[in-house]
Amino acid sequence: MTADSSDTEQQSGADVSGRVVAVLGGTGPQGRGLARRLAQAGHRLVIGSRSTERGQSAAETLSADIGAAPGAVTGDDNSGAAAAGEIVIVAVPWEGHGELLESLREELRGKIVVDCVNPLGFDKQGAYALDVPEGSAAQQAAAILPDSTVVAAFHHVSAVLLEDPEVSSFDLDVLVLGEDREATDLVQALAASIPGMRGVYAGRLRNAAQVEAFTANLISINRRYKAHAGVRVTDV
Amino acid sequence: MTADSSDTEQQSGADVSGRVVAVLGGTGPQGRGLARRLAQAGHRLVIGSRSTERGQSAAETLSADIGAAPGAVTGDDNSGAAAAGEIVIVAVPWEGHGELLESLREELRGKIVVDCVNPLGFDKQGAYALDVPEGSAAQQAAAILPDSTVVAAFHHVSAVLLEDPEVSSFDLDVLVLGEDREATDLVQALAASIPGMRGVYAGRLRNAAQVEAFTANLISINRRYKAHAGVRVTDV
Repeated sequence: MTADSSDTEQQSGADVSGRVVAVLGGTGPQGRGLARRLAQAGHRLVIGSRSTERGQSAAETLSADIGAAPGAVTGDDNSGAAAAGEIVIVAVPWEGHGELLESLREELRGKIVVDCVNPLGFDKQGAYALDVPEGSAAQQAAAILPDSTVVAAFHHVSAVLLEDPEVSSFDLDVLVLGEDREATDLVQALAASIPGMRGVYAGRLRNAAQVEAFTANLISINRRYKAHAGVRVTDV
Repeated sequence: MTADSSDTEQQSGADVSGRVVAVLGGTGPQGRGLARRLAQAGHRLVIGSRSTERGQSAAETLSADIGAAPGAVTGDDNSGAAAAGEIVIVAVPWEGHGELLESLREELRGKIVVDCVNPLGFDKQGAYALDVPEGSAAQQAAAILPDSTVVAAFHHVSAVLLEDPEVSSFDLDVLVLGEDREATDLVQALAASIPGMRGVYAGRLRNAAQVEAFTANLISINRRYKAHAGVRVTDV
């Protein structure tokens, strides 16, 4: 499946088809939702979880749900998924983010690692950004994984919408940040393979913190307007 | 002048007409541009500057440029402008932000203070967020001005577009943050009085830092896409 023409013209022409995409934390809401949409877009998906069994079970459920071709969606533990993926999406909770990546340094060597983790705290007044010693989750990943190419993306996509089978298109841009042009181009193309989404390059990793933290603002917006808010970048 | 219907339905119905709006730093690009558009929207404007003469000169230039009614746009020093304004927009450079507000504590007492300052640094790789001890420029303003109502807004509006007489409408939302509903409603209405703009409530001041810092991402986007990027919030 290709992006529609209005998306394509914004993209670099990077070809993401045929790549194996692994989702670490693929049994959480965000990971599960991204896996669903990327599988529907025709990518080969490996769903990683803390246990092989849970990963496999999630893969079977998703395969049946979307009618995936045999073998198109498989499950494994996070280590197996990281080893299998060419592009590895990190969709785990912030707690344990660094620890997991440290344990997967070998598996992730040479890979494109797409971090979509938002370090947020919650209290009665809603969500707020947590202090991250490295600056951001993405910079923490880059510090832990010097031999991987870390890209930050998919922070603002609503898990509720991703998982809603009634939703067929997404009115939002995926902000993509990183140091490596080839990798950010590829992740932009990955985003654009989901209907309605567009991947927009939005800077280097040193500017990832505010993109992660902005998820707290979207949560405030969702509360106030009873919405599933997303962001579009205008004039691009 | 009123917002068009598509804007109005998103607004609270707060009535911003007839208020005197002061712009501190009204002779810098951002302040000058905001003053121009708010004056064109029919608000009574007072342009503040470090010197009375420069404020008055900017007011005369703007009045002539947009054909303002006599007395609709006046100039003063920042202290005089702060005293005259009911809504006071702070559009000064980050350097000197705190010092200026400390010097205007009396003038700003009881006022709505709209902080649109972005604490950014610049180097060869572009823009990046500066560390702010109070968390954000808006929180610094709130700490310095306990007897004012601080709202954060207008961070992402391109000064180039604001000042371009060829531009008649703006494809962007103004994110409005604050603790006081009446004040954020009013500033949302102020934003919506500029054609194309919409004011969207985006959280409390503790979530202002990432909105300010996101200006660095917009600068990266502008570089990459040769654009004047703005943000629209979808599903709102």
